[in-house]
Amino acid sequence: MPTNHRLLLAARPTGIPGPENFTADAVPARTPGAGEVLLETLYLSIDPAMRSWMNESAAYNQRISLGEVMRGGGIARVLESRAENFVPGNLVQARLGWQTHPTIAGRYLQKLDLALGTVEDWIGPLGLSAVTAYFGLRDIGGLRPNDRVLVSAAAGGVGQIVVQIARIEGCRVVGIAGGMEKCAFVAGELGADAVIDYKAEKDLSAAIARACPEGVDLYFDNVGGPTLDAALEHLRLNARVVLCGRISQTHAAEPYGVRNLGRLAAARGRMQGFLVFNYHERYDEARTWLAARLRDGSLQQRLHVLDGLEQAPIGLGKLFRSENTGKLVVRLSEVPGPR
Amino acid sequence: MPTNHRLLLAARPTGIPGPENFTADAVPARTPGAGEVLLETLYLSIDPAMRSWMNESAAYNQRISLGEVMRGGGIARVLESRAENFVPGNLVQARLGWQTHPTIAGRYLQKLDLALGTVEDWIGPLGLSAVTAYFGLRDIGGLRPNDRVLVSAAAGGVGQIVVQIARIEGCRVVGIAGGMEKCAFVAGELGADAVIDYKAEKDLSAAIARACPEGVDLYFDNVGGPTLDAALEHLRLNARVVLCGRISQTHAAEPYGVRNLGRLAAARGRMQGFLVFNYHERYDEARTWLAARLRDGSLQQRLHVLDGLEQAPIGLGKLFRSENTGKLVVRLSEVPGPR
Repeated sequence: MPTNHRLLLAARPTGIPGPENFTADAVPARTPGAGEVLLETLYLSIDPAMRSWMNESAAYNQRISLGEVMRGGGIARVLESRAENFVPGNLVQARLGWQTHPTIAGRYLQKLDLALGTVEDWIGPLGLSAVTAYFGLRDIGGLRPNDRVLVSAAAGGVGQIVVQIARIEGCRVVGIAGGMEKCAFVAGELGADAVIDYKAEKDLSAAIARACPEGVDLYFDNVGGPTLDAALEHLRLNARVVLCGRISQTHAAEPYGVRNLGRLAAARGRMQGFLVFNYHERYDEARTWLAARLRDGSLQQRLHVLDGLEQAPIGLGKLFRSENTGKLVVRLSEVPGPR
Repeated sequence: MPTNHRLLLAARPTGIPGPENFTADAVPARTPGAGEVLLETLYLSIDPAMRSWMNESAAYNQRISLGEVMRGGGIARVLESRAENFVPGNLVQARLGWQTHPTIAGRYLQKLDLALGTVEDWIGPLGLSAVTAYFGLRDIGGLRPNDRVLVSAAAGGVGQIVVQIARIEGCRVVGIAGGMEKCAFVAGELGADAVIDYKAEKDLSAAIARACPEGVDLYFDNVGGPTLDAALEHLRLNARVVLCGRISQTHAAEPYGVRNLGRLAAARGRMQGFLVFNYHERYDEARTWLAARLRDGSLQQRLHVLDGLEQAPIGLGKLFRSENTGKLVVRLSEVPGPR
């Protein structure tokens, strides 16, 4: 059996997590039992939600125990199968955990449909961040052509796709991002109509007023806190606010108090949270739509790739320091051709 | 022509409004022109929304000018008609303003259907406060049988009806009100399953936890501010928050910062504002439903009646000092029998 290199949660972080919160070990990979599959991890996805699972205060069914393999999704190749429908060489998506050779029940695996896109597409613009953008905009946000859309963390994993879907659907899109490089990416490669560099603006609300002179029909919120508060000031009648992420609040000493809910009420607006997992049965719909836009060249996703399992904790830190441009992934192994 | 006694906005209030913000005058009633009707005001409704119209900062199409008759809705009797469909003696509902003898175009009048209820029913449980409760609960709140419903200002004009509709629809209802008398009314006459006296509670969130041990599926918010924040802590999965009123914030020195929006996101909940006027074409549906419950005795509304036009400014002050139990109305004239 191959050696399974793992990263275990060793200490709960108080602030931004990093290598100090994990210990590495190496154990023989577990021989698959009936219905199980031995995998070789190819990519791990680094996502904001992972931080909350590390807290003692997380819901019992989400909390990662100390000494447990860090949880996380990714893409893997089947090495050995005792599960129906899987053979060695199959490429799958699953909650693999931070380990090189997980053994997992076949029922928790989803086979990649390589007719829709490559392995890199599946960790990127066909992955869960993109699917989150799709359902958030459409089902929660009720996206309509000509909507004036504002999105925060527009260069991030979800934000990139939000900008592009809105553009493709005929909306005017304004992205908020931090720093010139990210802003250039959002305006240039992603095609946003305008971009706001929140790090360069003293008064974010005034900057939104300039970038969105007609106001905002749909605000896609990936950050929460003062950015959400500023966006609320510019809601148009019947506006929709999609609560997707709250990364600004993850390490806040105390929760920010949102003062402009009166604007939501006055706009007769709707603010709604969601989890992409609720749309599980419609993932194919999202991926079919996204894949068609990948093929015609109207959609892309920039990946921020780190190499090696030991980079995963570093990636998590980068994410919360906003040092990534694009969706953060860790590559564990050379990716083989499809089979 | 009769004398039209009027109350004009004389000074914009900074805090709670009262008689000092108005001047009285008396002018001959205006002879109706083509399409117009001369009316005698019977009842005026005193509602929280009126306060915002008095502000310099109100939207231009809502702001009341200094020297203008105070705006407000009510019920009147037709004295003289040059409008189709109206004859002397008809009872109508309209934005009458604070005056005894308005002259108004017929197209702004709605005739009372006395088959549905009496004049007092039309200012009370068939009035706009009740219709607001109906659409807020059903269309915005998506009320379902067995929902665990929490409502603030439960003894107020809208809140009373919310409690009763939710009870009639088979929900568990908890009301929040201030003081023993209001709480006794909410639990007793309105039939709430539990009641929270916010004036007697140091920790409102803990009181909600006790009164709603299974959490809250639908929070109907009439007050905003810290009460909204406390309610957010107890949302169940897929909860809905109806933003109907913000009376706690009307005279706040600065807006309260709501800290628990993360709970809305985590609950995948929805928070939405609305205006009853958007449901204009469906008022009949609401009133038919409400009238049937009036007839079978399952619905009531307590009115807090003040007598005489000069009481209107006093009533507005009472409303914002929370000194009313029930829907506040001003009676201007003896109400005649139907005709």
